[in-house]
Amino acid sequence: MAPLKLHGVPFSTCTARVMACLEEKNVQYEICPVDLSTGAHKRPDFISKNPFGQIPVLEDGDITLFESRAICSYIAHKYKDQGTDLLQHGNLHGFAKVMVGCEVESQQFNPAMGPIFFHTFIAPMRGWAPDQKAIDENVVKVGAVLDVYEKMLTSSKYLAGDSYTLADLNHLPYITYIMKTPHANLINSRPHVKAWWEAVSSRPASLKVTQGMTLGSK
Amino acid sequence: MAPLKLHGVPFSTCTARVMACLEEKNVQYEICPVDLSTGAHKRPDFISKNPFGQIPVLEDGDITLFESRAICSYIAHKYKDQGTDLLQHGNLHGFAKVMVGCEVESQQFNPAMGPIFFHTFIAPMRGWAPDQKAIDENVVKVGAVLDVYEKMLTSSKYLAGDSYTLADLNHLPYITYIMKTPHANLINSRPHVKAWWEAVSSRPASLKVTQGMTLGSK
Repeated sequence: MAPLKLHGVPFSTCTARVMACLEEKNVQYEICPVDLSTGAHKRPDFISKNPFGQIPVLEDGDITLFESRAICSYIAHKYKDQGTDLLQHGNLHGFAKVMVGCEVESQQFNPAMGPIFFHTFIAPMRGWAPDQKAIDENVVKVGAVLDVYEKMLTSSKYLAGDSYTLADLNHLPYITYIMKTPHANLINSRPHVKAWWEAVSSRPASLKVTQGMTLGSK
Repeated sequence: MAPLKLHGVPFSTCTARVMACLEEKNVQYEICPVDLSTGAHKRPDFISKNPFGQIPVLEDGDITLFESRAICSYIAHKYKDQGTDLLQHGNLHGFAKVMVGCEVESQQFNPAMGPIFFHTFIAPMRGWAPDQKAIDENVVKVGAVLDVYEKMLTSSKYLAGDSYTLADLNHLPYITYIMKTPHANLINSRPHVKAWWEAVSSRPASLKVTQGMTLGSK
């Protein structure tokens, strides 16, 4: 069977999220590079795949998906019986925790971490002055979310229990980049969050993906 | 079996989202009111249910969930064989579209609609001056998202195909409120979006829930 086609670039946080999921599930895929520098993601052939003009896009036969978290959910459901059980499939209590953990990432962690990442990595690349006020405000917000995680992680190894799931995986891209900055202290200053991050980031699938996350590297 | 307990208030957008899902699935539930005016959601007994101190919270026996979209996903999966099929369960192509539609709501629509709602309904209630610049900027963003929807809705009745799913339902709360304001034009000026909204909002489950959405009413 033809492998899945992932349109994106390995240094992109959202592409990396999907790659980590595919690696955890042992799903074969090929990367179809999208040249962001020439605006390939805004051209009609790409817009026909994702009308929002953003990477990544996954093509699985005649099924085309976009939005990285949607792609990860799809992969985790479709391949539920192979690789890492990212959904706690068949365990209602565990599944509930995965759903909650994923939405906490999406609605609490991501909206605060996004601006820090943008102003630390993307703005300088584009020659824009980083908005320090936005960074500072969002460092406080991320800290508040991580305070909740610190407490949760006193009673379980991972965010949705003692197994690694999509709730953890979805955090991989932003934290990988943030750990290259002084904001790494957000993680390192919280012992249980730090241990969790060490467990998450040292997984073979994580290591395979994060080596391609080269933004900000000299 | 004891009905599910939904801690929240019917006028809250996130509580209403979960109520609409429970109604579509014909699941019995009881509302356990949370007195936001006295800060009941910030007190230890509530924080023990949701460490972020936000409504709603769903208790299903010994399972406690928060984050409205997580609760809806849980309900849609747990009760997949009753009521409206909100996930296109058993149809991989349809399921993929539901996942994408849900994430588009979460990552594209919601971040733009949230500030409009906040500055139009919540800020005035608290005696704060609405931030007109934030409203104006986000009206443009919501418009861009709805332009994509307008195009998508030329080829299907709903956002994830010709059946009503969670991808549509998750939009119900914010649009219900926005339709009470001059921003209703965001919907009414786009014929396919308008027809979609009429189909979504006239469903019996939607009508039952939106009658309790009284914020901004005289």
